Amino acid sequence: MTDIGFVGLGTMGGRMVERLLAAGHPVTGWNRTRSKADWLVEKGMRWGQSPRAVAEHCGLTFTMVTDTRALQAVTGGDDGILAGLGPGKVYVDMSTVSPAASRELADRVHRAGARMLDAPVSGSVVTLVGGTLSVIVGGDAATFARVEPVLRDIGPKVVHVGPNGQAVLMKIAANLGLAVQMLAFSEAVLLAEKGGIARETAVEVLTSSVIASPMVKYRAPYVLDQLDEVMFDVDMMQKDLLLALETGRQFDVPLPTTAVTNELLTAARGMGLADQDFAVLFKVLARLAGVDGARA
Amino acid sequence: MTDIGFVGLGTMGGRMVERLLAAGHPVTGWNRTRSKADWLVEKGMRWGQSPRAVAEHCGLTFTMVTDTRALQAVTGGDDGILAGLGPGKVYVDMSTVSPAASRELADRVHRAGARMLDAPVSGSVVTLVGGTLSVIVGGDAATFARVEPVLRDIGPKVVHVGPNGQAVLMKIAANLGLAVQMLAFSEAVLLAEKGGIARETAVEVLTSSVIASPMVKYRAPYVLDQLDEVMFDVDMMQKDLLLALETGRQFDVPLPTTAVTNELLTAARGMGLADQDFAVLFKVLARLAGVDGARA
Amino acid sequence: MTDIGFVGLGTMGGRMVERLLAAGHPVTGWNRTRSKADWLVEKGMRWGQSPRAVAEHCGLTFTMVTDTRALQAVTGGDDGILAGLGPGKVYVDMSTVSPAASRELADRVHRAGARMLDAPVSGSVVTLVGGTLSVIVGGDAATFARVEPVLRDIGPKVVHVGPNGQAVLMKIAANLGLAVQMLAFSEAVLLAEKGGIARETAVEVLTSSVIASPMVKYRAPYVLDQLDEVMFDVDMMQKDLLLALETGRQFDVPLPTTAVTNELLTAARGMGLADQDFAVLFKVLARLAGVDGARA
Amino acid sequence: MTDIGFVGLGTMGGRMVERLLAAGHPVTGWNRTRSKADWLVEKGMRWGQSPRAVAEHCGLTFTMVTDTRALQAVTGGDDGILAGLGPGKVYVDMSTVSPAASRELADRVHRAGARMLDAPVSGSVVTLVGGTLSVIVGGDAATFARVEPVLRDIGPKVVHVGPNGQAVLMKIAANLGLAVQMLAFSEAVLLAEKGGIARETAVEVLTSSVIASPMVKYRAPYVLDQLDEVMFDVDMMQKDLLLALETGRQFDVPLPTTAVTNELLTAARGMGLADQDFAVLFKVLARLAGVDGARA
Repeated sequence: MTDIGFVGLGTMGGRMVERLLAAGHPVTGWNRTRSKADWLVEKGMRWGQSPRAVAEHCGLTFTMVTDTRALQAVTGGDDGILAGLGPGKVYVDMSTVSPAASRELADRVHRAGARMLDAPVSGSVVTLVGGTLSVIVGGDAATFARVEPVLRDIGPKVVHVGPNGQAVLMKIAANLGLAVQMLAFSEAVLLAEKGGIARETAVEVLTSSVIASPMVKYRAPYVLDQLDEVMFDVDMMQKDLLLALETGRQFDVPLPTTAVTNELLTAARGMGLADQDFAVLFKVLARLAGVDGARA
Repeated sequence: MTDIGFVGLGTMGGRMVERLLAAGHPVTGWNRTRSKADWLVEKGMRWGQSPRAVAEHCGLTFTMVTDTRALQAVTGGDDGILAGLGPGKVYVDMSTVSPAASRELADRVHRAGARMLDAPVSGSVVTLVGGTLSVIVGGDAATFARVEPVLRDIGPKVVHVGPNGQAVLMKIAANLGLAVQMLAFSEAVLLAEKGGIARETAVEVLTSSVIASPMVKYRAPYVLDQLDEVMFDVDMMQKDLLLALETGRQFDVPLPTTAVTNELLTAARGMGLADQDFAVLFKVLARLAGVDGARA
Repeated sequence: MTDIGFVGLGTMGGRMVERLLAAGHPVTGWNRTRSKADWLVEKGMRWGQSPRAVAEHCGLTFTMVTDTRALQAVTGGDDGILAGLGPGKVYVDMSTVSPAASRELADRVHRAGARMLDAPVSGSVVTLVGGTLSVIVGGDAATFARVEPVLRDIGPKVVHVGPNGQAVLMKIAANLGLAVQMLAFSEAVLLAEKGGIARETAVEVLTSSVIASPMVKYRAPYVLDQLDEVMFDVDMMQKDLLLALETGRQFDVPLPTTAVTNELLTAARGMGLADQDFAVLFKVLARLAGVDGARA
Repeated sequence: MTDIGFVGLGTMGGRMVERLLAAGHPVTGWNRTRSKADWLVEKGMRWGQSPRAVAEHCGLTFTMVTDTRALQAVTGGDDGILAGLGPGKVYVDMSTVSPAASRELADRVHRAGARMLDAPVSGSVVTLVGGTLSVIVGGDAATFARVEPVLRDIGPKVVHVGPNGQAVLMKIAANLGLAVQMLAFSEAVLLAEKGGIARETAVEVLTSSVIASPMVKYRAPYVLDQLDEVMFDVDMMQKDLLLALETGRQFDVPLPTTAVTNELLTAARGMGLADQDFAVLFKVLARLAGVDGARA
């Protein structure tokens, strides 16, 4: 069995490698900060010397990084993945970048004789660890067919949505709903609370109502317990909303609730709350309503 | 076993009586249009001559009507429920009206020596029939304790949220999320579709993503199949958003996503789509995006 | 020359009577708090014993009060204006109430044999004192023709827009722009300021640009000098926005910028700033942007 | 008297050169399409062979082009302005580009030993021809002092707002108000019109009210007469709103009315109305309200 390469071993990437190892795949990994990958080496992951070395060694290489800039850092240059790709190899990017950037990268991969898929995930560390993650895949059908079994070992649900770039587009479309639902949920909780209903009761009713998406359930503890853990921070969330708004303008699709929610994420930064999970939208609205975001 | 009274036998009320009958309760019912209740009489429901007659005959009387005006029509006047109430009796209103109107009615009931609960439901005909409805209850604890077993026969989940009027407040808070989630879902589908992803694929991914609330799943067929059935029409949805916005102003809680969504419901009426389910928000946005709401 | 009656001698009403007296009209006035009218009595105004007494004594009676409730208080009841009206008399309401309330009142006036006009003003105390006020008039043409010369003595510009109720509709439509322009102006000032431009410079450029409406110029000192004077407070402004939103729903006209701005007025109340001029929208946005609304 | 260079002779640039010539300045000009500059050559303008040739020949060179891309085309490369600049020369860009792009260009100009000012205008062809244009200037004070007299010959009002890049920031901040005021004006007109007031009457009242900015007055004919002339098209307006939103995110300033209005400009494109003046926001809202944008 040939090694699987994995570049970018942060919160999500690291857990994915953990799942691949658990499924019996040999994995060669690389991360900008090596120490963060020690736990995976202990679990049997081989360390690659550079993104290029990983791509040279492996027939199938994944990346999972923060944004377009980070993606360029690991794919371009002398030590980058592109320099290590060649005919017969497959490269899969799981990051959320703009559809245009993803398609451009796919072109460069194809010119190198290899194939690329964009394969962002719909879900979070919670769904990943819980084994309920969805992977959305863009690229040609033959390459998809080759990689699909491995993808199933990462997230059990795998959907092929179209050619290169379409999966990141689908991901961006899905993610706009996260922020909008969080803000609407905050409106509901604060309306109930200022009307005299205990916050716990309001959250209990809402999380068992028809608006209770997994997102709402995951974020309820942020509203109730002032959870400190950052699953997806304000800047990451806003990055995705900006990609949605940018893509919306490109395709002439107005996104009214996204646009309004995005401005309140900007307000979160203005209020000095940028380092928190985007569930901080609750605190932003609470301040507007004259409610202390913290519980009494 | 004493009869349960039920006034208002429309889509929701009728199905509730059906469940009460199935659970073995004798029921006496009344509806403005008697013919709509024939199927319930066939199932064993006793017909009451007027709302007042129902309340006089039964120790526990329910109402489930469309709005404040309809509620006044069945509670006030010589033939109204209030005229039939007295010491020891309990009256439960399941309609969604303003918290202020509900509290005012509770005052009148108390002055008549009886007790009142507001008990709106979180859910729809789908959840009701599926046996997963939640009933939210406002009123004093003793009366709640008396009525709770019967409420459990309607919807399995029953939550007491506070004194009179608090349940309708909670219901209003929950319902604002329906419309906002529908609009955000529409933004996501149209963004994906105009970007080149098949509508079916986009809806499939979204309905298995973390934004997939029961509401999103119930409304997906409206987007995919141009479903004609009206579960909750534009005017009903807007009535609830207006109650939310009005209550938000009363308690100084700004509701930005609710306010924006509400204007697009107004646009639905402006475009001549008022008689449809509020899922028509998809069509409103589709027209703004230059997409024919109907499938190609 | 017959006396002109004037009920409601607050900031606006009082200055109007001052202008009528200056133009040589005998005026009989009434105000809920008599002491506030002392300065007008000193200028020659006759004091009426009640709204009814004013209407009985005068052929032409004006009202200028805060809202629908205040209007009902001076028009209804034994001491109200309606009780003092009769054939040949004219009643002119200059308050801003809902078109429906105004039309209903006109019906009652007509049933009493008299005629009514709604005649709200477009402008403020600044324009009134400066002699540049516009009066918008609704009602039948013959009555308008009779009253027009007196209206010209109040504000030099008088426009007849249609039958009863249409002038308050026009006023409501005009006023929504006040709040929206104030918020957009605040966005521009804060964007420039946080980008490094002195607030004075930003305001100077904006107030001499193509967006410099009289409203923008009047409110510039609130942004620059933290002016304390309240020309039109948060609740008054919101009352007009609510009338606009309510009327918009009635006629199926979505009002997106009005709806968004209205929620930030609610936030002003949530933040404890309700007693200030609606220019406080600048402070609300400044807090969202992490800027102290007060100047450094 | 040394020649003034001017690159970009479109609607605005051409009229500016006309004013400079009228003020007695010798001008050397260049435009991508030479034929569009024939009328200026007839008025005495000297034709330059390239942007570089213009900059080499003149001590003071202006550019007035559409966007960042066009600016790069005339400043970069072998034939670009940068190649023609040197010690003692001054370059003034009057285009509206992002503050960051403007500062970056200023750095390159400074490295070439010359000085740069950003000097966008607040106003339009109407204000320019009418001689009431404002020029906003960013750059060092000494350079501003040298160029100020020439700028006064273009627009009578000249304001120095800060160092390089601050003038385009100020311009962007001013321009967001154009679109927001246009949309709020449209809301007011449609509310009045659907309520029964003639569109002419509504526009007359609004354009003489306190919201009547020069922008509102310039655009009134678009609403009334379906004017075809494009003063500032949908894409140009949206370009400026995007710069505002982008800069707002950079400085943590939420721009709620700008964000909402921007989505309706996207809708204008979705509805196939992109080639019109941004006053087309009226038609977008009219369609949402079920009103034919064209007059009956």
